[in-house]
Amino acid sequence: MPGNSFGQCFCITTFGESHGIALGVIIDGCPPNLPLNEPDIQRELDKRAPGKRLTTPRKEPDKVEILSGTFEGKTTGTPITLVIFNKDIDSTKYEPIKDLFRPGHGDFTYFKKYGIRDWKGGGRASGRETVARVAAGAVAKKVLDTEGIRVIAYTVALGGIRAKERDLDFIYKNPLFCCDKEAYGLMERRIPEVKEMGDSIGGIVEVLATGCPPGLGEPVFDKLDADLAKAMMSIGAVKGVEIGSGFRAAEMLGSENNDEITPDGFLTNNAGGILAGISNGDEIILRAAIKPIPSIEKIQRTIDIHGRVGEISVKGRHDVSAIPRIVPVCEAMVRLVLADHLLRLKAIR
Amino acid sequence: MPGNSFGQCFCITTFGESHGIALGVIIDGCPPNLPLNEPDIQRELDKRAPGKRLTTPRKEPDKVEILSGTFEGKTTGTPITLVIFNKDIDSTKYEPIKDLFRPGHGDFTYFKKYGIRDWKGGGRASGRETVARVAAGAVAKKVLDTEGIRVIAYTVALGGIRAKERDLDFIYKNPLFCCDKEAYGLMERRIPEVKEMGDSIGGIVEVLATGCPPGLGEPVFDKLDADLAKAMMSIGAVKGVEIGSGFRAAEMLGSENNDEITPDGFLTNNAGGILAGISNGDEIILRAAIKPIPSIEKIQRTIDIHGRVGEISVKGRHDVSAIPRIVPVCEAMVRLVLADHLLRLKAIR
Amino acid sequence: MPGNSFGQCFCITTFGESHGIALGVIIDGCPPNLPLNEPDIQRELDKRAPGKRLTTPRKEPDKVEILSGTFEGKTTGTPITLVIFNKDIDSTKYEPIKDLFRPGHGDFTYFKKYGIRDWKGGGRASGRETVARVAAGAVAKKVLDTEGIRVIAYTVALGGIRAKERDLDFIYKNPLFCCDKEAYGLMERRIPEVKEMGDSIGGIVEVLATGCPPGLGEPVFDKLDADLAKAMMSIGAVKGVEIGSGFRAAEMLGSENNDEITPDGFLTNNAGGILAGISNGDEIILRAAIKPIPSIEKIQRTIDIHGRVGEISVKGRHDVSAIPRIVPVCEAMVRLVLADHLLRLKAIR
Amino acid sequence: MPGNSFGQCFCITTFGESHGIALGVIIDGCPPNLPLNEPDIQRELDKRAPGKRLTTPRKEPDKVEILSGTFEGKTTGTPITLVIFNKDIDSTKYEPIKDLFRPGHGDFTYFKKYGIRDWKGGGRASGRETVARVAAGAVAKKVLDTEGIRVIAYTVALGGIRAKERDLDFIYKNPLFCCDKEAYGLMERRIPEVKEMGDSIGGIVEVLATGCPPGLGEPVFDKLDADLAKAMMSIGAVKGVEIGSGFRAAEMLGSENNDEITPDGFLTNNAGGILAGISNGDEIILRAAIKPIPSIEKIQRTIDIHGRVGEISVKGRHDVSAIPRIVPVCEAMVRLVLADHLLRLKAIR
Repeated sequence: MPGNSFGQCFCITTFGESHGIALGVIIDGCPPNLPLNEPDIQRELDKRAPGKRLTTPRKEPDKVEILSGTFEGKTTGTPITLVIFNKDIDSTKYEPIKDLFRPGHGDFTYFKKYGIRDWKGGGRASGRETVARVAAGAVAKKVLDTEGIRVIAYTVALGGIRAKERDLDFIYKNPLFCCDKEAYGLMERRIPEVKEMGDSIGGIVEVLATGCPPGLGEPVFDKLDADLAKAMMSIGAVKGVEIGSGFRAAEMLGSENNDEITPDGFLTNNAGGILAGISNGDEIILRAAIKPIPSIEKIQRTIDIHGRVGEISVKGRHDVSAIPRIVPVCEAMVRLVLADHLLRLKAIR
Repeated sequence: MPGNSFGQCFCITTFGESHGIALGVIIDGCPPNLPLNEPDIQRELDKRAPGKRLTTPRKEPDKVEILSGTFEGKTTGTPITLVIFNKDIDSTKYEPIKDLFRPGHGDFTYFKKYGIRDWKGGGRASGRETVARVAAGAVAKKVLDTEGIRVIAYTVALGGIRAKERDLDFIYKNPLFCCDKEAYGLMERRIPEVKEMGDSIGGIVEVLATGCPPGLGEPVFDKLDADLAKAMMSIGAVKGVEIGSGFRAAEMLGSENNDEITPDGFLTNNAGGILAGISNGDEIILRAAIKPIPSIEKIQRTIDIHGRVGEISVKGRHDVSAIPRIVPVCEAMVRLVLADHLLRLKAIR
Repeated sequence: MPGNSFGQCFCITTFGESHGIALGVIIDGCPPNLPLNEPDIQRELDKRAPGKRLTTPRKEPDKVEILSGTFEGKTTGTPITLVIFNKDIDSTKYEPIKDLFRPGHGDFTYFKKYGIRDWKGGGRASGRETVARVAAGAVAKKVLDTEGIRVIAYTVALGGIRAKERDLDFIYKNPLFCCDKEAYGLMERRIPEVKEMGDSIGGIVEVLATGCPPGLGEPVFDKLDADLAKAMMSIGAVKGVEIGSGFRAAEMLGSENNDEITPDGFLTNNAGGILAGISNGDEIILRAAIKPIPSIEKIQRTIDIHGRVGEISVKGRHDVSAIPRIVPVCEAMVRLVLADHLLRLKAIR
Repeated sequence: MPGNSFGQCFCITTFGESHGIALGVIIDGCPPNLPLNEPDIQRELDKRAPGKRLTTPRKEPDKVEILSGTFEGKTTGTPITLVIFNKDIDSTKYEPIKDLFRPGHGDFTYFKKYGIRDWKGGGRASGRETVARVAAGAVAKKVLDTEGIRVIAYTVALGGIRAKERDLDFIYKNPLFCCDKEAYGLMERRIPEVKEMGDSIGGIVEVLATGCPPGLGEPVFDKLDADLAKAMMSIGAVKGVEIGSGFRAAEMLGSENNDEITPDGFLTNNAGGILAGISNGDEIILRAAIKPIPSIEKIQRTIDIHGRVGEISVKGRHDVSAIPRIVPVCEAMVRLVLADHLLRLKAIR
């Protein structure tokens, strides 16, 4: 399988370029008879919609259409195709930099790999690619709903400002999906400062899954945490992933990091809900490090496609941070992994 | 594909239990006419061999045999099978805890998933499973050799002690594969202290790949970093993975994190050699967080397979840390990913 | 991978229902920089277009659109999405039989498997599904063109009338893609007779591939002939496949069936161009047995979805035979297999 | 995935050369808690054992060993490894022809593909490779047993002599697994005649599966019949496959070929138990055309690896026909397909 598919039993294949005709996804392997309508998917897409005061001026009416796989509002077991036609496309802003590589951006490596440059809006290397993931995640959610599995993602750090609380109620009450009211206040002030500098910032997204039965995950390579790590790292801006105690585990003693077991469950959750690659029935918890968006207005040294020295200032309508738009993407990817492993578990039962 | 296979074009499938008859691997998709003999593989296996003063008293003569796939010292293009028969097996030490779950260990989740308990030595959930990965990695190395790609892994932290230098020459001069002489001195003293406490420690392993051509990695899901993250996280003890600037990127500005480009290459390497999931020709660099080994002598609360309260002290001949044995495992996993993506790149050229 | 994908390196995933919104395909793994425009694909689609005097009255303007994967007329290495929106849909003719199973048709098994019935036009079980295969085959053709590989399919039998000549020039001069002028005359007369009876007929399609280098095919399971057999049998109406001497080989002596070898090549081609699953450089030749179309006007006994006895006469605008529409489908499937194996071969070279 | 794996959920990977150290298979995805011991597998292997009067003088004590995946006689859900060490190896008879290609044999194409020649006993291109398939099939049988699915294969034609009866009781009462006593009598006399001529013969094997629930098979590419066709055609000697009415369907009218449906089931079984790629609950029936064994004593023209003209007479201890040894191989392959699709069906239920 080439690289645009993900999942073994619940498998998605995505397509589409930022400034192309459409983006979309085929979901193959979805069980039949699940209720599915466009509004179910639209709701998730709207979470990553721009137009919010704090982040981006771009207005894309990301409207999803179901092209196949349902009949009278139910999945049929055949491939579900979701498509979002691109509107509001204006590639003229990319013309001045059509031959220049943006530092930190994939246009350099795409050109080196494929020998062809789709300079309009980043082509397939654009963060916009993730719209298809979010759409697919909405279908995965339907599968998880049947088992009572819930997944929620939220911002725990932005530009060095860290959440100290994990207030799940606050998440949908702020445009950054931040889980800490106080931290949110600081973040809200930080964004315009960074924008003013013509720069960008990153952050950390945490994802929490509750209601997972024990048994999800296939040793030794398709471990649940291994597939989650791949899922997260496959999102363009992610540079690190950790499960449970994560990098802190490297400094703990075994007696601290081990989660003692009682008949009522685990006393702690340093494992992040996964042991030896298999869910243990506890909450699954992971974090992804998001790098600052590479397209910045600040002038940077670079080269063009002919190898000549140049400098670049990216002026388009870019976000200051991949957060919050990346938050529902992280959520979607975790749902896709869990839905896939749920079906895989059923296969051997 | 079930979970014991890894790779699309250069694909391995591993098998074997810690106290079973044998462990091993089939490598399918290896190009023909590469020189391959048992000593090539044995050399890598010996790197993870125990018996070193600082780590473990267990003595396993891990002797590899090639069962298929070569003819007169060359690969033939057919599946290469490597097997290591288990010797020096004594399961009696596991008998007292055969019904007890070890906190932090996979025996709980394996039992919940499969409904059967192979209590001898941890079965397939044992770290010993990785011997097959190292053997396979030695074959991947042969593929990478043809392109001049080199991979090296080393210890950058152990039990909270961090390397400050990256002295590659020192790595093979100390039994912990540490890249910093001073840090090594501290680590060397820390290990017996932890052992004395009946406890264990974790650390951080860094992996460096040089000589990679641009173009390795398949967007958007099989990104090179996504596959590397999965590869690392699929190793039992790993709880976190980061590429290049990793979690630090979450706190950097875009102008700091972006690697500016000149005709002579990138000025920095925060990307860790990978942009948008494709290698950029620079050094690939990643780190994995290793948790402390869960099997400790210190008494911990737990339950047995019937759900009854109990406590456990694991007395076997266990390592104090997965480091250094895990170091060549990390190295092997990175080699497997790179070899696979090298072949995948060739397919479209 | 679920069932709607085909190919390892050159991989397609199809979607769409007969009376749904659209049908289409994502092609992932196509090499970059191949010229590709909609007319290239339309040309192949038109081959299976109905509206021809001898076969079917249905008029579908099967117009293909490229949604992704090309830039300025060239493939970019990203997923190529082709979509054909359904027009001219009228499901009213299916209403009288919406609860009845058609003997010989997949509506029975789809209902048993998925527990839901898309009664409009056969849903995904319709032969119309193959439009996506033909579209994908047009892209595979671009890959094969780079190596000078040519694939052609033609009718060698229809309703018991067998071609005696293999006149490749005649194929595109008759609407049945028959390779024998005399046989065509008889076939042409047979079709209206069968139509008059309210019945249907089957036939045999042969596919010939020239210019294949030796080395295509991956033992032992993904043999070239094994993948070709799967490709053919995956077409709804196909009940049998044979390569080279095929079923005749069962009655031959080894000395007759073996193709003797000279420095100038093989003296015969009973192998059909494939030995031990690998192309031998000779012409690849295979045949598929096509069953008569199950939807007939003639009254047949059946049951409805509640298990009640009924009888059925399918009155829609159905073809008398899957031939000739299935001919370009067979051609496309062989192209897809060859393109895939061509890329797989490159991976190990 | 390279070519030596088969199956999506119940997945096997085989290895080994005819005159190498061992042959074997890893089975990944087998459900846990199935009873499995070496005699279960040995029983199937013995079916393909030579040493029977009519076929071959070679004596291989094909003794299977379970290297992993079971614990106290039950499957654990981890990879099951089966290995058969080669004994009784004598490659000296191959020395005179080590540079000559055998007409009809894979040594030509293996050499062209891989550029290396394992001349001993045919290497991986030997029919002996199928021993691993039969071993794996014995495990698939365990999975099918849980659902009451039975698979049986038998000879319906040999060297042009066709069975007229389908007497299942007779199958195991004759060394050719023939299902017709009278035909067997003729076959028994034919074999020594062909042997005397230094020639070989082929035949036809039929496989019957009973007890299959409706719903097995994944449209549109992984149709049950498509996977069965691939499974059969992946066996070296098979040149054709047909399901149900097969090639006869090409000459039938729709009204003849359609199986009418009643509340008690189908009135006929031209479909061979599969409609639109999904099992319909009826008996599954298919046939494979077996070519005559290419290695014959009769002198044939050929070339050597340097392209020089030569002639060859293969003198080793070869069978006159792949039948009967291929019969349990066909049986095993059908079992593997059904077990895989059974698990795949469970995944969406």
